[in-house]
Formats: sequence, structure tokens, C-alpha cells
Amino acid sequence: MAPQYAPSLRSRLGPILLFLQIGFIVIFAFYIEIDNEQIDKNKFSNLYPEFQDVNVMVFLSFGFLYSFFVRYGFSGSGFNFLVAIMATQWAILLNGIESWYSRGKIRVNLRSLVVAELCASSALISIGAMVGKTNPVHLILIALLEVSGFVLNQWLLQTLLKVQLLNSIMMLHIFGSFFGLMLTLILHRTESEQQFEKEKFDRKTGLFSMLGTLLLWMFWPSFNSILVDDRGRKLGVVFCTYLALAVSAVTAAAVSVLSSPKGKLNLIHVQSCVFAGGVAIGLSMSVVHEPWQAMTIGFTAAVVSTIGFRYLKIHMLLAFHSHDTFAVLSTHGLPGLLGWLAHLLLQIKDSDDHTTAIRFAVFHICSLLITISLSLSMGIITGLLLKWNFWRPQQDKKCFDDQAFWEFPQNAVRK
Amino acid sequence: MAPQYAPSLRSRLGPILLFLQIGFIVIFAFYIEIDNEQIDKNKFSNLYPEFQDVNVMVFLSFGFLYSFFVRYGFSGSGFNFLVAIMATQWAILLNGIESWYSRGKIRVNLRSLVVAELCASSALISIGAMVGKTNPVHLILIALLEVSGFVLNQWLLQTLLKVQLLNSIMMLHIFGSFFGLMLTLILHRTESEQQFEKEKFDRKTGLFSMLGTLLLWMFWPSFNSILVDDRGRKLGVVFCTYLALAVSAVTAAAVSVLSSPKGKLNLIHVQSCVFAGGVAIGLSMSVVHEPWQAMTIGFTAAVVSTIGFRYLKIHMLLAFHSHDTFAVLSTHGLPGLLGWLAHLLLQIKDSDDHTTAIRFAVFHICSLLITISLSLSMGIITGLLLKWNFWRPQQDKKCFDDQAFWEFPQNAVRK
Amino acid sequence: MAPQYAPSLRSRLGPILLFLQIGFIVIFAFYIEIDNEQIDKNKFSNLYPEFQDVNVMVFLSFGFLYSFFVRYGFSGSGFNFLVAIMATQWAILLNGIESWYSRGKIRVNLRSLVVAELCASSALISIGAMVGKTNPVHLILIALLEVSGFVLNQWLLQTLLKVQLLNSIMMLHIFGSFFGLMLTLILHRTESEQQFEKEKFDRKTGLFSMLGTLLLWMFWPSFNSILVDDRGRKLGVVFCTYLALAVSAVTAAAVSVLSSPKGKLNLIHVQSCVFAGGVAIGLSMSVVHEPWQAMTIGFTAAVVSTIGFRYLKIHMLLAFHSHDTFAVLSTHGLPGLLGWLAHLLLQIKDSDDHTTAIRFAVFHICSLLITISLSLSMGIITGLLLKWNFWRPQQDKKCFDDQAFWEFPQNAVRK
Repeated sequence: MAPQYAPSLRSRLGPILLFLQIGFIVIFAFYIEIDNEQIDKNKFSNLYPEFQDVNVMVFLSFGFLYSFFVRYGFSGSGFNFLVAIMATQWAILLNGIESWYSRGKIRVNLRSLVVAELCASSALISIGAMVGKTNPVHLILIALLEVSGFVLNQWLLQTLLKVQLLNSIMMLHIFGSFFGLMLTLILHRTESEQQFEKEKFDRKTGLFSMLGTLLLWMFWPSFNSILVDDRGRKLGVVFCTYLALAVSAVTAAAVSVLSSPKGKLNLIHVQSCVFAGGVAIGLSMSVVHEPWQAMTIGFTAAVVSTIGFRYLKIHMLLAFHSHDTFAVLSTHGLPGLLGWLAHLLLQIKDSDDHTTAIRFAVFHICSLLITISLSLSMGIITGLLLKWNFWRPQQDKKCFDDQAFWEFPQNAVRK
Repeated sequence: MAPQYAPSLRSRLGPILLFLQIGFIVIFAFYIEIDNEQIDKNKFSNLYPEFQDVNVMVFLSFGFLYSFFVRYGFSGSGFNFLVAIMATQWAILLNGIESWYSRGKIRVNLRSLVVAELCASSALISIGAMVGKTNPVHLILIALLEVSGFVLNQWLLQTLLKVQLLNSIMMLHIFGSFFGLMLTLILHRTESEQQFEKEKFDRKTGLFSMLGTLLLWMFWPSFNSILVDDRGRKLGVVFCTYLALAVSAVTAAAVSVLSSPKGKLNLIHVQSCVFAGGVAIGLSMSVVHEPWQAMTIGFTAAVVSTIGFRYLKIHMLLAFHSHDTFAVLSTHGLPGLLGWLAHLLLQIKDSDDHTTAIRFAVFHICSLLITISLSLSMGIITGLLLKWNFWRPQQDKKCFDDQAFWEFPQNAVRK
Repeated sequence: MAPQYAPSLRSRLGPILLFLQIGFIVIFAFYIEIDNEQIDKNKFSNLYPEFQDVNVMVFLSFGFLYSFFVRYGFSGSGFNFLVAIMATQWAILLNGIESWYSRGKIRVNLRSLVVAELCASSALISIGAMVGKTNPVHLILIALLEVSGFVLNQWLLQTLLKVQLLNSIMMLHIFGSFFGLMLTLILHRTESEQQFEKEKFDRKTGLFSMLGTLLLWMFWPSFNSILVDDRGRKLGVVFCTYLALAVSAVTAAAVSVLSSPKGKLNLIHVQSCVFAGGVAIGLSMSVVHEPWQAMTIGFTAAVVSTIGFRYLKIHMLLAFHSHDTFAVLSTHGLPGLLGWLAHLLLQIKDSDDHTTAIRFAVFHICSLLITISLSLSMGIITGLLLKWNFWRPQQDKKCFDDQAFWEFPQNAVRK
């Protein structure tokens, strides 16, 4: 039998990238201006180092985390990079729609960039569920639609429920993971029931992925605190995120060892679940004030996340045909829900009277319901769009394989 | 003969991690509070980027440096991460004992975190001597005891000799390396006399280790200067550390080539000895004011360190049965002693009269003697504790081997 | 036939490094002093994080980018590191000549270090053309001569044409690439016409190189903006560089797919050409004020750069016998020229009257001519010097091979 090649993306990827990019340039030319006047000089210097931390997370760490698979390193890191760039540009535009509507121009500053990158990171989480089973055209479509949905969700939360930006943007973990989950349900491949042939790692790709993990872990306090303006509050968020992450890492390792029959650590469990505390604190940071609260949340999140990864992932696959590559449900979805719950409970505990407590609870539950329903429905729409063969999905045999998308070694250097 | 498996750590590592972590959470709940009030707003913004530099060093760079061995990458980076987290939490508590004693509460801020991470890094240095020959339970015990000893040492130096924090904390290089040395003596394995079967590197692990090295090298100026409050002085420390490191790197390469019969560079010599200048400046920074002094110290430290690595390491092994994996004696101990000596000489030179010079010399020598004796005795205690088979050390054949501790590739991803 | 060993560098590299390093120490001892007095305290804190970004680029990212070749990782990253250190020290001295001449002392501060590292990075670009075909002695000579030429060029531009530092220093891309090009012409090796045996990459080295690429890409805004003092202007430069880089990355991927017969991405094209926008903005940043201008420049630069890499590199090799390893002509030279042109056009467009426009054009063209001629002539001088066999070049078969310079694995650890 002749070898089967993956379908060429020349007539898909190239034109789509050029079309979108030129489109962005044209729109930027007419509607974007740099917000030079209102600049608070100290703010720029204070924000810039954290902005670079977030950059490292969005453009590098996620990509290296996704380079876990033995033959998928270039795609894991390269496509993440590409997608993050497209999603960030798109998010700058979408976030500016309101100010464009009222003033005819979108003014951007460093803070807008940061917000756009946080929106992009919600798309990167969704992509975690689809790593290895999609081509770059799919990924770009996922990213654009996911970011659109996420920005719409934020707008709804802010308009209908007066949720603050700081709280609504941290819904990115929940939105991203449920969106990704819906994609795995709709874009199910039958081969995923047995293991994909190339869905495995080796000693070196595990280390690249460790690099991504550690960078994400270290800079997570910047991720959570970057939009907090009050300096005193910022220290609190940094400190609580740091402690929650520390506890998560230790707990993830402990649970991984305890749940392994041979008493060994599982690299991918540990790598994915060390963030659980950071995710949960992200969703509850406005009410977490004591270190021990942060640590307890981090502990619970890591237990839920690690056990979810070990047992839920395979169950989801067999029962629901949902092959969730990086188990985003367990690593972002569940810790996110837990953080949401912690927010609810702490806020109720802090309330003076019943009325405010109940009012808050109603609002809080509504904001979750809106987020999840929008996320699921956008996921369904996106999934159905991607089922179209026009986008040239690779064959099952070419899943988790760089060779489908990259010119390969020997003769690649010269010419 | 049936294959021999490494002993399962399920009943050791899991419970110990959970016990310690839950213990930390409980203690934090009762005694730790965030120091929000006294916050100097500018200070937070100024400290935060350097704090992240130190984070990169402690959580990532040391680990990747220790990922040098061909089958030990996951353990090298992963265990370093775990140990750093435990040691940091433990150090936050220990450093706060005094304020707990006087006020009943420990107030923490970003600076406390930094100090705790510096204490943790002294444990990471000790671990350098034991990389590959210990299991994670050992490493955690080493870290906790080392940090306890180091904090005690600092307290002694500050109470008895009025040594400033900035000087006493930089003793971490000397304390860590002598502590590690004592462990190698007590926990000697006979196989180490021949080379361990898996104690070797390859092209790729060498590069991971290079990554750790370069990150350590670049951020060392932050490591030395982060606790310096005066901004003018800070520039001096940054500049001197930078120059000393630069000279060290060049000198280490030159000595490595000159001492090689075939005129080739030795990767691990260069990687370990480029820091010698940073270490030496760390111990002498309060008296080094001229760039050339820093450069000369860096030069001498690199010569001593590289020659020590090339000739002393094997000599220590054969004569004293001390198998010091990353030669912490040569890479931290000797440059540390050199820095200590430089401090002494420069301070004496700067003194106006004999009395102060002699008084300083006595104090300075006492502080070294206290540090070394405490370090050696804590090392002996720790070593004896670790000899206990209860901790389930791996067999000699499983040294430098990830497979003893990590679920391995193929079937690790699914389930 | 007996195996051929690469010539030993013991009697070359060691003495040269020691001689230069001791020489630097002596000169520093007499002429360098730290500029403590005039320090603006806020400036230090504001500059330091960006300084570390530039450090990462100069010492780490370039090196990892150059670790692309399968057997050349240690040399790629290690020699880059060594060269960057030597070049930085040398540049500190050369940049200080003027102040030494007028005041007898060279005062250095953090800004001097940054300027020196930017000068060093021009040498690192030149080296990109020679990676794999030179030994470390060559590289150090190249670096010292290139930096000398570049500093001379800056002095000429500032003295003769009153070009501002911010503009003259960004000529580093043009100077570095033409210098490197001249070296490839003069130091031609016949085997390069067929592919060098070891000039290829694999899945893992590609990822190391990806790491270098992403770090360079992310921190490029710091590289362009670090010397901009005005905070409002700085935001503009950061923002424009960021957008130009984003557009470049997308465009490089699109052009790479479109120009590949099989519709696949080419890793090295993408990695090298994602910077094109950053380079071009570097040369035009003082006149680019609108985001869309930056994006258009980024777009054009990436198209030129990617097409140049795909077609020009092989053409240069066959027609001119110029084997330009990392195609610095296409990746730095052409985008640099494009940025220069954009500067010219935008400045003319902004001019009110013809006279100033023409005067500016003349000055601008002169500055380019001076830069290119000086760069080419210094390249010729350096190339001729390096042809001397005294420096012991490796044989063709030992090109792109770490084994020529590094003690190799198994027995390297012990001893």
C-alpha cells in the first residue's frame, strides 16, 4: 500500500492567514490609536515586567506544555504561538468595540494588550483539549470563535450582572474548558478509543513540557494580579496565588503517588495539576484574604484536579467518546468551578445580612450559568463548523505527528 | 534473574507530603498574616521583577542544571521543584519564629518570601551533592533539616556576632556545600567508586542543563542584589556581580581548555564554574566597590573552582569516599570561602586603625567557624537519619534513573 | 584510514581567553568607575527589568537559536555565551573612549551595560552567518573586530552626521549582517556547495531553537525600547514593535506554507523570519507613530525575509559561494534595509518643506552608505585575518560538530 500523505494545507492555511492578517491591518489602520495622552508614567513601568511575564506564559509556556508528545513538538509550540498571536489581535479589536461604538476609535494601551492576551489564553486552554487531533486551520478557527464567545460572555456579565472585569475575565478557565470539552464531543475520532499511535512522550519531550510547566507555575501570580490596580491588594493576590500554587504542586505530587499502584509519580498528572490552585484562586481572589484560605483552596483544587485527571479522563473517553488530550476539564474546568464555589461561600460568610448574601448568590450563580451555556453553545457551533471537510483534517494516522505539517529534517535546511 | 524494581514510595512519599502540607496549612492558618499596612508602594513594584528572577533561579534553573544526566531529567527538575516549595514554606515559618515569639503572629510580605527562597536555595545547593543517589523522601528531609540548620545559623550569627542579614544570608553557599559534603561522606555507596552506570549525559540533556546554567548566570545579579535596599548601592552590587560572573565564565572556559589533554572544553566544568564569581561576590559584596576588585575575585574564584572540579572531585572520591555529584565543594564551597577571605582582606585594608581591623577579623573568623561547624554537625545528623532503611533508598542500579520514581512512557498518557 | 581529529585548541583558545580577560581586568582597574552619584533612583528600577530581558536575548536566546543543528548544540549555545561576554566587555571599553579622553575615567552605569550589550548583539548577528564553520578562537576575533567596527561606525555617524544614538545603534542589524556576509564570501569552504554532512536538525534541536526564537520574539519590544527615555514614546515603541512582530510571525508562516510545494511549514524559515518586523521597526521607530504603519512594515519585512530565506540563500551560495548559515542577509540585512527605507519615506512624508526633506534624505542615505562600506571593509579585514591557519580551523568534516571542541559524554563526568 502506498504511504498516505496528510492533505496539503497550501490552499487553506496560507490564504486564511494572509486574509486575516491583512484584514487586521486594515481595521487597525482605521480604528486603532495609541493611548499616549492619559499615560500614567509610573503605571507603565510597573505594568511592563508583569506584562512580559504574561507574554512568557501565553506565547511560550502553553506551547511548551503542549510539546509533550514525542512527535508533536514543533506543532505543539509553533501552532500555540501562531494561535496566540491571532487571538490577541482579534481580542484587541473585539474588546474595543464598545469604545469604537461610542467614540469611533479604539484607544489601546499596555493594559488593553494584557486584557487581550488573557482573552487569548482562554482560547489556548480550549486548544489543550484538541492538541494533536487538529490542523492549524482548525486551531485558528477555534481561537477566533472562542475569543468571540468569551468577549461576548464578558460583555453579558458586565452589562447584565455588573460583574467586574477582574472577576469576569477569570471565567476564562471555565469558559475555555467547557468550550474545549464540547469540541472533543463533536469532533470525536474513532481511533481515540484505542490509544493514538503517536500519543506518547519520551524523556526529552517530557522535559520541554516541564519547562513550560515551571514557567507557567512561576508566572501565575503575575497572571492573576496583573489587572489588580491597588498595590496593597496586589501583594495579597500575589501572595495568595503563590501559596495556593505551592500547595497545589505538593498535593498533586502526593495524590499522584498515592493513586499509582506502583507508587510512582505520573509526569503529566503532576505537570497539569500543579496549576489547580492558581486557577481556583483566579476565580476567588477578590474574597480570599487570608493565606490559609488560599492554601486550603489550592489543596482541594489539586486533589480534585489530580483525581479527575487519573480517573475522569478515561471515563469521559469511554462513556462519552470525549478524548480530551490535556484533560482541560480536570485541569481548568473543575478547579475553576471550585474557585467559583469558594468565592460564593466566602462572600456569603462575609455578608452582614441575609438579603445581600442571597442577592450575591443569585448573581453569582447566574454568571456561572451564562458562562457555561454560552461556552457550550459556542463550542457546538465551532465543532459543527470544523466538521466540514473543507478544512482538510489530517487522517487518524497523522494525529500527533509533526510530519503532517512541517517540512522535515534532512533537506529542510538547504532550500 | 528477575528484574529488580526500585522500592515503591507509595507508603512513604505520599503520606509525608500530605502530612507536611496539611501541617503547614494549619500553622499558616493560626500564625501567618499578610503585611498589607506597612507596604511601601514603590518598593513592591521595584522588588517584584527581581523576585521573579529569583523564582526562576530557585524553581527552574537549579532543576534544569540538575537535569544533566541522561536518564534523570524528570527527577532532576521535578524533585528540585518539589523540594524548593517545601523548603520555602518551611523557611517562611522558621524565619518568623522571632516575630511570632514577640507578637504572636508572623507578618509576611514580598521580602519575607524572598528571604525564604534564599534559605531554600541553600538546601538546593546541598542537594547538588546528592543528585541521583537519593529518593524524593530523602530530598525533602534533607531540605527541611538543612533549612532548619541554616536559619539557626543565621540567628546565631545575628544574635551573637551582630552580623547583618545581608552578610549572614550569603553564607548559604558555604553552609549548603559543607552540609552536602557531609552527606556524601555518610551516605557513601560503594558503587560510586566505579562510575554509576547511568551517570552520564548526552547532547540533549547537556542542553537542558545549559539552559539552567544560563538562566542562573543571568539572574545572579538579582540574587545578590535583591535584599540591598539602597538604590545606589544596588547598582554597585549588580554591576560587580555582573562583571565577576563575566570574568568567571571566560576564565572557567580557559582553564577547562588548558587543563584538558586534548584541548577541549568540558561541558560540566564550564557549566558549574561560571557561577564562581557570583558566589564569591555574594560573600564579599558589602566591601567590594571597584569593578576591578570584583573582576579579580571572579577570576580567582573561577580558577579555584575549575581546577577543584577537575582534580579535587576525583581525589575526594578516592581518598574520602565522597561522591559529590555536582562538586558543590568546588562550585559553591571554595568560591564561598574565597569570597569570605576577600571580604576579610578588603575590610582590613579599609580599616583606619588596627583595633577595628583585628576586631573585625575575629568576628569574621568566628562567623565562619560557627557556620562550618553547624553545617557539618547538621550534615552528620541528617546523614545518620537518612541511613535508616525506612526511607526506602533505591538500589545502586537504580541510581540516576527516572524509572525508579516515574510512571514511564508508553502507557502513562492514557489513564 | 585513521580517524582525523580536529586540531587541539589548547594552545590557542586558553591563552587568548586568559590574555584578553586579564587585559580587560587591568584596563578596568585603571579607567572604569561606577557612576553612583548621578543615579536617578527611579530610572534604575525602571531599567532593570528591561535590562534582564535584553540579557536573556543576548546571552541565551541567540545561543539557543544557534543550537539548531543536531550535533552542534553545546557549541551553538556555549560559544554564543562566551562571545557575548567578551564582546560586551570590549564594547564597554570602546564606548567609553570618548569620556576617557575628556575626563581620564570611564563612568559606567546600567545604561552603559545596555548599550554595550546592544553592540555585542551586532557581533552575534554576524556570527549567525558563520555558525558551524568556525572555531571559538575565530568567533572571539570576529566579535572583537566587529564590535570595534560597529563602535567606530556609531562614532562616525554621530560625529559627522549628528545621528542620534537611538538611530545609530539600530544600524546594528545592517552592520552585523553585511559584516557576516563578507566573512562568508572570504572564508568559503568548498564542501558547503554540497550540504555539510552534519548541517541538519532533529525534533529536539528544533525545539531548543524554538525556545530561543520565542524568547527573542517576546523580548524584542524591550530590545527596541530600552534606550527610549520618554515614557510616553516608550509605550509607542513597545506597542509598534509588538504589532510588527505579531504580523511578521503570521506572515512568515503564511509565506512559508505558500512557497512550499507540499504546503508545509519550514521550521527554520519561520523561526528566522518572525523577527523581521522587529528588525525593521528598530530602524524606523523614531518616525513610526501609528499601529498600522508598524504592521505594514512588519508585513513587508516578513514577506521579503521569508522569500529571501527560501530563494536567495541558495542563490547566494551557488552564484557567490556565500554559505550564510542562518541567512543573516535575509533575516537581518533585508528587513534592516526595509526599515531604513521606511524611516526615509515616513520622514519625507512628514516634512513640511522640500528643503528639510531633501537634507534629511541626503543625511539618511549617507549614514547607510557609511555603515555598509565600513561594515564590508571591516568584514574583509576580519575575513583575511581569519584565513590564517594559525587559528587552527577545523576540517570540513568537523563542521557543525561539537566533538571538535567538547570533551565527550561517557567519561566526561568523572575526571
